[in-house]
Amino acid sequence: MATSLPYLALDADDTLWHNEPIYQASQRRFRELLFAYHDPAWVEERLNVTEIRNLQHFGYGIKGFTLSMIETAIELSEGRISAAQIQSIVDMGRDMVTHPVELLDGVATTVAQLTTTHRLMLLTKGDLLDQESKLARSGLGDHFSAIEVVSEKNTDTYADIMRRYVIAPNDFTMVGNSLKSDILPVAQLGATAVHIPYATTWVHERVHDAQLHDIAYHRLESLTALPDWLAEQPSS
Amino acid sequence: MATSLPYLALDADDTLWHNEPIYQASQRRFRELLFAYHDPAWVEERLNVTEIRNLQHFGYGIKGFTLSMIETAIELSEGRISAAQIQSIVDMGRDMVTHPVELLDGVATTVAQLTTTHRLMLLTKGDLLDQESKLARSGLGDHFSAIEVVSEKNTDTYADIMRRYVIAPNDFTMVGNSLKSDILPVAQLGATAVHIPYATTWVHERVHDAQLHDIAYHRLESLTALPDWLAEQPSS
Repeated sequence: MATSLPYLALDADDTLWHNEPIYQASQRRFRELLFAYHDPAWVEERLNVTEIRNLQHFGYGIKGFTLSMIETAIELSEGRISAAQIQSIVDMGRDMVTHPVELLDGVATTVAQLTTTHRLMLLTKGDLLDQESKLARSGLGDHFSAIEVVSEKNTDTYADIMRRYVIAPNDFTMVGNSLKSDILPVAQLGATAVHIPYATTWVHERVHDAQLHDIAYHRLESLTALPDWLAEQPSS
Repeated sequence: MATSLPYLALDADDTLWHNEPIYQASQRRFRELLFAYHDPAWVEERLNVTEIRNLQHFGYGIKGFTLSMIETAIELSEGRISAAQIQSIVDMGRDMVTHPVELLDGVATTVAQLTTTHRLMLLTKGDLLDQESKLARSGLGDHFSAIEVVSEKNTDTYADIMRRYVIAPNDFTMVGNSLKSDILPVAQLGATAVHIPYATTWVHERVHDAQLHDIAYHRLESLTALPDWLAEQPSS
């Protein structure tokens, strides 16, 4: 791999492999667990509130999500939830961590193809061990020359990464499914952002249309369209 | 800061700031919580077993420790632990995350002094957000030109870091309190390892004397002795 190839940064969850469905399946089981206490819509709303409140202390990822489910279950059952049911929530967390990694369609071929034109950086947030483990199990690990697991994806994060890797914003391209985390901060720094929407978006990652006003970014329907799209761009 | 200065890698927990006492205080509260069910020594032993079993799924850090306390409480109480008591365990986890960062004696001055001779790398394992937050709250953040939060500290980890930062083993020095994580793998790679023991060591970080046979490393009583010790070493 020639070191002169430009960097291309790829998000992981819901860009390379399915992630949101794993959370949604757990949330479904969680709503069933609390069905005796509250209606599902209210359970979902309270869990979201707890999750977002806990982000500052526990960060993104399955462990914090599991602790938030436990707190929500205690709160919504007014302490009547049983220890066995709480154990089943911890087990749900462990199931999520060990869930098979399922690549999106065409990802394995596309990522291999991208290494012929770019040095690939995996740029993701979440629990460190969990993201490393998923990359290892994905079979994609050897294609990435840099792995960055970060605690938040904002303009400071991207500016720091460009500084550390000595990449000018003109030469930096980020690809991902989250307008909030993968697109907005990157576009604000004058770098190239490519949005590849996933079927569903976690409520915390949603952005208002107004935030996208005057923001320049590109949109592709699938990662498989990325090599051709990159080839069409004028080289900087 | 001249870019030609050599790198010096420092561990964080129990090397720069106190950490083990925060875990020990939580373990004490946990043993009290379960006093009605089992004697404290057995509670401590079972918690350690659960923690180490969960490392592969939840990794190092407070969130995994909190989930392990919850599982142990359910197991040892045979499901009789109350939801309110489980909530108190989650609260213990949140208290640990927000616990004030207390530097070891002389660390602030010593770290500032080390920046005149070295580029400092913080090299630590644990939860990403938690370690970043502690570094920010420590007031030491500006002294570090590199921050590496890793999921495990073994020879692969150190070899990868030396490769990424283009540091020859001859030029790499690691300083920390854990023989298992900071010293053994570094010495095995032929780099320089400086052990600064902390008052207590987590059982999982302990090593047998036999493992240290033929391992070359240095030992200082305090980080404050490090600048003079480094000045005495022949430059490579």
